[in-house]
Amino acid sequence: MHTTDSTETTVTYATLHQFVVSAFERAGLSPGDAKAGADVLVMTDAWGIFTHGTKLLRGYLRRLKAGGLRAKGRPKVAAEGPAWAIVDGDSALGQVTSVFAMETALGKARGCGISYVGVRNSCHFGAAGYYAWLAAREGLIGLSMANDKPSVAAPGSRGPITGSNPIAYAVPAGRHHAMLLDMSVATVAGGKVYAARTRGEKIPSTWLVGADGKPTTDPNGYPEIGALQPAAGHKGYGIALLIETLAGLLSGAAFTSGVGNWLWDDGTQPTHHGAAFIAMDVDAMMPRDTFRRRIEAMVDDIHNAPRADGVARLYIPGEMEWERYELAINKGIALPSDVVASLKDAAAMVDMNFQKLYS
Amino acid sequence: MHTTDSTETTVTYATLHQFVVSAFERAGLSPGDAKAGADVLVMTDAWGIFTHGTKLLRGYLRRLKAGGLRAKGRPKVAAEGPAWAIVDGDSALGQVTSVFAMETALGKARGCGISYVGVRNSCHFGAAGYYAWLAAREGLIGLSMANDKPSVAAPGSRGPITGSNPIAYAVPAGRHHAMLLDMSVATVAGGKVYAARTRGEKIPSTWLVGADGKPTTDPNGYPEIGALQPAAGHKGYGIALLIETLAGLLSGAAFTSGVGNWLWDDGTQPTHHGAAFIAMDVDAMMPRDTFRRRIEAMVDDIHNAPRADGVARLYIPGEMEWERYELAINKGIALPSDVVASLKDAAAMVDMNFQKLYS
Repeated sequence: MHTTDSTETTVTYATLHQFVVSAFERAGLSPGDAKAGADVLVMTDAWGIFTHGTKLLRGYLRRLKAGGLRAKGRPKVAAEGPAWAIVDGDSALGQVTSVFAMETALGKARGCGISYVGVRNSCHFGAAGYYAWLAAREGLIGLSMANDKPSVAAPGSRGPITGSNPIAYAVPAGRHHAMLLDMSVATVAGGKVYAARTRGEKIPSTWLVGADGKPTTDPNGYPEIGALQPAAGHKGYGIALLIETLAGLLSGAAFTSGVGNWLWDDGTQPTHHGAAFIAMDVDAMMPRDTFRRRIEAMVDDIHNAPRADGVARLYIPGEMEWERYELAINKGIALPSDVVASLKDAAAMVDMNFQKLYS
Repeated sequence: MHTTDSTETTVTYATLHQFVVSAFERAGLSPGDAKAGADVLVMTDAWGIFTHGTKLLRGYLRRLKAGGLRAKGRPKVAAEGPAWAIVDGDSALGQVTSVFAMETALGKARGCGISYVGVRNSCHFGAAGYYAWLAAREGLIGLSMANDKPSVAAPGSRGPITGSNPIAYAVPAGRHHAMLLDMSVATVAGGKVYAARTRGEKIPSTWLVGADGKPTTDPNGYPEIGALQPAAGHKGYGIALLIETLAGLLSGAAFTSGVGNWLWDDGTQPTHHGAAFIAMDVDAMMPRDTFRRRIEAMVDDIHNAPRADGVARLYIPGEMEWERYELAINKGIALPSDVVASLKDAAAMVDMNFQKLYS
């Protein structure tokens, strides 16, 4: 989500990418792993999802230095069959493991039509949508999901039960950019609650439950007490438990309350996040041109459908992100000030100077 | 959803099942197909999902008599690979085709670990959860989804864009009943809006958009005008388009506005619904006892978690349905009066007498 911050610093995609590669290398990652990590974080910024892009670099560097993330960790296939694999992340950077896992899924889907790869011993993986897009970029359908330290209530619970458990999909869409949805199972991101708290504002009663487990309009307890409400109540909760099943239970990772907080928990220890990736080979099932015609027709129909008064456009999932991406590539990425502040801290941790890159 | 109707008629599971089998046979289905259809509808009633159980029999019989559903239709595998298949439903009863498709998926998942079966030339398939449960009953994880005639708005649209597009999953859960979620992508089922209209009540502003595409608390236009709102806004809309992709685009079925209304459109014509089924073989990836221990631990943790004041229990998806099922098996199925009225009509269509079964 684009922050509302009005003070922005514009850097080119290439400059930001090179900075992140260097920072990861200085923290001990191989050039290949550093590039994989930078690919994920900078693409996420280019999509305008600044909460999950390079702002996170600082936290990852801290955990790499403390040892809970292993700079030389090597994800590997721990078990596999024709259309599935379980990947052990070896406590490497979550992005490195997740790219490896989705690439494994793509290979298996090309042979079998569909594949599942479960991941254990991973960590926070950033934006789920990136890995789904790795599939769509090559003409396949991709799904990506992960569990996380609990922050979201179940209907009726007093505290958090599941993580915000991101889930994303991407579908190649012919002449259009890939259809791309990346969502959490909570009504809103915790960052929106925290921002309201900072501004001293009340929040809608659908965002949070308080210490008593009841809906509240008071953001002041969060994140220390209370929990986010699941999106659409039992529906968001139910999807959260499907994600726990595929990313946590079946992969051998931690699940629900067993998952660590990648940012705040002891940096010397692994968090044991789980993740899951599913790929589907469109080409195996339908001539590529047929699928292309069909999805283009669906997208065109939606674009041309009647709109409510005052609504300029109907969006396909991902369209807003792809328009920000085009702007980022052509005009540079306009980083909000909180991201810049975080990048300056990150640079200092590895004896670099971020400001030098653009001033 | 259990109706709020206070006048109930209790019949045994076996009695109701035999009635539905006979009715389908009198409409021309083979004994095997009639049993498959009855299995789905009566199980759905036993779960207390009376909106999607035997109440639908009347509409299916009407379409079977008109020819839009083909009593002698035979679903078949039209194309396949190691872990996928496309099933052509041949305009058979949607339930018959869907059971065939999920059984095809189970066979392929046992060999490959995961499988996808897309379905075209199907019709309304009733409760998505039934087919997911077919997988869980045999120790596999199942997902089930379908598209439908548009009834749900996109954010900002003036009318419906996608179907209510049901999606369900089921996961075997050791000593517990299978975890089972069956949801639509709309905030609420259209039936709830219609019930409020019948009672002359206003509705919450999150349920419906009116003729102008704006949220409304007035249910009086529905279903002729307006559209249901997607659950959690762009999230429900995004999931609806994933379902259109897997159930409609990739299977070769109709999609979005191309899908017919199984109840109201010309009964002599097929509706071209699509569906998708995914199965995952837990046993291939993890020792069965290990998975069982893990999911039992997750369920137990949730059951034991702190609750908000006044909340007696935290539920796992499906628990309410399974408790109604136990009651239905032991004490009979308490059919609401609208279901009984529909069954009496259905009986008359095939020269049977429903009332004779229980009075």
